[in-house]
Amino acid sequence: MPVPSRPIVAIGAVAAGTSAASQAKRRSGERDVIMIEKGPHVSYGGCGLPYNILDPRRDIEDLVVISAAEFRSKRGIDARVRSEALDIDPGKHAVGVRDHAQRRTYTIEYDRLVVATGASAAAPDLPGMDLDGVFRLRTLEDGAALKRHLVEKKPRRAAVIGMGTIALEMAEVFKAYGCEVTGMDVLPVVPSGYEPEICARVRAELEARGVGLLAGVSIRRLRGDGRVTAVETDRGDVPADVVLVATGVVPATGIAARAGIALGVKGAIRVNAMLETNVPDIYAAGDCAEHWHVVLEKPAYVPLGTTANKQGRIAGANAVGRGRQFHGIAGTAVFRVLGLEVARTGLGMMEAAAAGFDAQKTVITHRSRAHAYPGSGTIIVVMIHEKSTGRLLGGQMAGEEGVSKRIDILAACLHHQSTIAQVAELDLAYAPPFSPVWDPILVCAGQAQKE
Amino acid sequence: MPVPSRPIVAIGAVAAGTSAASQAKRRSGERDVIMIEKGPHVSYGGCGLPYNILDPRRDIEDLVVISAAEFRSKRGIDARVRSEALDIDPGKHAVGVRDHAQRRTYTIEYDRLVVATGASAAAPDLPGMDLDGVFRLRTLEDGAALKRHLVEKKPRRAAVIGMGTIALEMAEVFKAYGCEVTGMDVLPVVPSGYEPEICARVRAELEARGVGLLAGVSIRRLRGDGRVTAVETDRGDVPADVVLVATGVVPATGIAARAGIALGVKGAIRVNAMLETNVPDIYAAGDCAEHWHVVLEKPAYVPLGTTANKQGRIAGANAVGRGRQFHGIAGTAVFRVLGLEVARTGLGMMEAAAAGFDAQKTVITHRSRAHAYPGSGTIIVVMIHEKSTGRLLGGQMAGEEGVSKRIDILAACLHHQSTIAQVAELDLAYAPPFSPVWDPILVCAGQAQKE
Repeated sequence: MPVPSRPIVAIGAVAAGTSAASQAKRRSGERDVIMIEKGPHVSYGGCGLPYNILDPRRDIEDLVVISAAEFRSKRGIDARVRSEALDIDPGKHAVGVRDHAQRRTYTIEYDRLVVATGASAAAPDLPGMDLDGVFRLRTLEDGAALKRHLVEKKPRRAAVIGMGTIALEMAEVFKAYGCEVTGMDVLPVVPSGYEPEICARVRAELEARGVGLLAGVSIRRLRGDGRVTAVETDRGDVPADVVLVATGVVPATGIAARAGIALGVKGAIRVNAMLETNVPDIYAAGDCAEHWHVVLEKPAYVPLGTTANKQGRIAGANAVGRGRQFHGIAGTAVFRVLGLEVARTGLGMMEAAAAGFDAQKTVITHRSRAHAYPGSGTIIVVMIHEKSTGRLLGGQMAGEEGVSKRIDILAACLHHQSTIAQVAELDLAYAPPFSPVWDPILVCAGQAQKE
Repeated sequence: MPVPSRPIVAIGAVAAGTSAASQAKRRSGERDVIMIEKGPHVSYGGCGLPYNILDPRRDIEDLVVISAAEFRSKRGIDARVRSEALDIDPGKHAVGVRDHAQRRTYTIEYDRLVVATGASAAAPDLPGMDLDGVFRLRTLEDGAALKRHLVEKKPRRAAVIGMGTIALEMAEVFKAYGCEVTGMDVLPVVPSGYEPEICARVRAELEARGVGLLAGVSIRRLRGDGRVTAVETDRGDVPADVVLVATGVVPATGIAARAGIALGVKGAIRVNAMLETNVPDIYAAGDCAEHWHVVLEKPAYVPLGTTANKQGRIAGANAVGRGRQFHGIAGTAVFRVLGLEVARTGLGMMEAAAAGFDAQKTVITHRSRAHAYPGSGTIIVVMIHEKSTGRLLGGQMAGEEGVSKRIDILAACLHHQSTIAQVAELDLAYAPPFSPVWDPILVCAGQAQKE
């Protein structure tokens, strides 16, 4: 078979796009591979933004894993930055591109296309969003702008709107820069997606570290005259000279939708196990696409960098004809808020009920290290299982230490459709510095069997 | 059915014995349950001995989880210390007991018996083992004696014979007490049970921290005049004023064998999935018994406290008629040596070959935290899989952090007979402080698929 002369093209070059392009190049060799990226940076770890901002000595571009120049020189991939995909013509297999640097518009004809346009910060329609001192945090430019503000303007009062993962990670950052911090969310129990027992532990951590929390609040506007001075809520004004709006993300699917690519769950691009869209020769991967969920056994939308990388690789391999399948996510995530690690995998009670499971929840608190070993913290473990079958549906944890990789044990069990009886019998590693002799997971699964 | 008037009896009351007795009492309520324990302490965490000795301010009895008095008052279990089981008469359902405190001998007639006699330190037959300053480390008394020696005699040169888990943990302790430390082992590559790549990392850690290592050495005698002064080896004398002999353990099965109870792997008591021995109404659990291995799919001998607790519970439940099964171990273990965490689960290459698997090994080194996140260490990951099926057979890791619970992810996979392809697709938690975006496990499993 002759090698197609048209290139493999990825729209977007952060996680999924770079993974797809790299995989397509590695698996095909001589094929031309092009990545077009709207912004000035490719291949960066956006999840690292809070930790980069935390350290004023670090450059924001430290977060770039491989530069566009390195993609060209080391991987033979034509990485084009400041290049925005304007439209896709599936009939002609063409993408219109605006080169913002050169101020010109041109067309690339593709053989196979991987849409990896990612997600955008979901911006609430609040008056005052354009005031100085109001930030979002999605791209490196967002991060650089916020960091500059913190270093140069030395704000004293920070308000964080939205109490999700990034917002909670940023609470630590604002504290480190000497700000009084107030978090606020329309939801009465935060963070979203966690069980009330875990949320209570997060709230206690915020209180203990002096971070204010207004949960279940209506946010009316951002006040200020040029510069932001306060957040107006239904419970009064919260003075603020820096505001982070971190109210989640939405899939960036405008260009896909205009090209007739079908959307699915939460407006993300519908894909099959091969990560094919409904349009021939067009794949989608990452934060713009659906993600098959191994517990729900249907598509979900859980935008995370790990999933973007995995899906990107598969889409890229399939774009050069490999026939690989994406077997799905368990919905695993972890974050740190101040001195607390918080993690989840699988379904929460509400998700389980919505999916039609007759679910039972078990909650235990146990120490993180052996009896009589100094420095132990406590871990709260939540496990959710199906009553009729004993099947594990999800797990959540919070604690000072030992949460991050411990949640992955449950994630592995979800991938294998374990029962709680099987979880209770796992042969887990034990040494006094690392866990009690009965690991918190075993204690919780044992308790779940009794309930 | 009338309640049998004879008690449930456990011989041994550390891990398996206390778990068995507690479970039998909890599940039966009114039944009499007796534990007889040769030593002065019950229910202690022997694995915590090195860490207790490390802190001169802590009492060795901190390691007791529940005292004999508490077993009596809080759990209604008749816990008898300094009471040695002398013999078992299966025909009469009787155990002969020597009460060393009261200096009397008597008989208990049991309904069901759980043999939980544990393991003993395997003592090499070396001249000079009885010199002052020579220690083993199995019981709390052993620990108390060694600690007293360290605190009062302030030894300056420590020799550790045997380079297994406890020996390596103790290297840190001797260093902390200001000793020069030399470890020695007959094996050329240590610790036993780990792949050479992991052993090299352990050796490098010992070298970096100034711990001497004589591997592949023959140890001829301990020298001294009343007090130990040196270890004589085929490579010369190693001066030492404190010597720890830590050359592993052997199952303590003398009383069982004399009663006609069949022994199996490595002389441990043969048990079925119900933890029944070949003798009616006699169960065995813990370090004296065999352990079903989920990868080998046959019995093994891997004496660990976690397994002892699990087996004890099942034996205790079955002793009061519950019909529970022990589903087996994966051979999971972790230890810390100085600044290094080392862990394993499943089979090593030699074990895999001995079991008839056509095994392939994959080794990678990866960072422990995200790109550009400060403070990252490196983790070496070894995965062993069956070539023909891709089935995961084992995994090992060493690194400065993030090893302990990460090995458990692979343990969970072994319990579910995962393939490396399944491991490579796991949805593992990611946040910059806790792991790189491609977790070392995913990197290794991905590499294994290519090899």
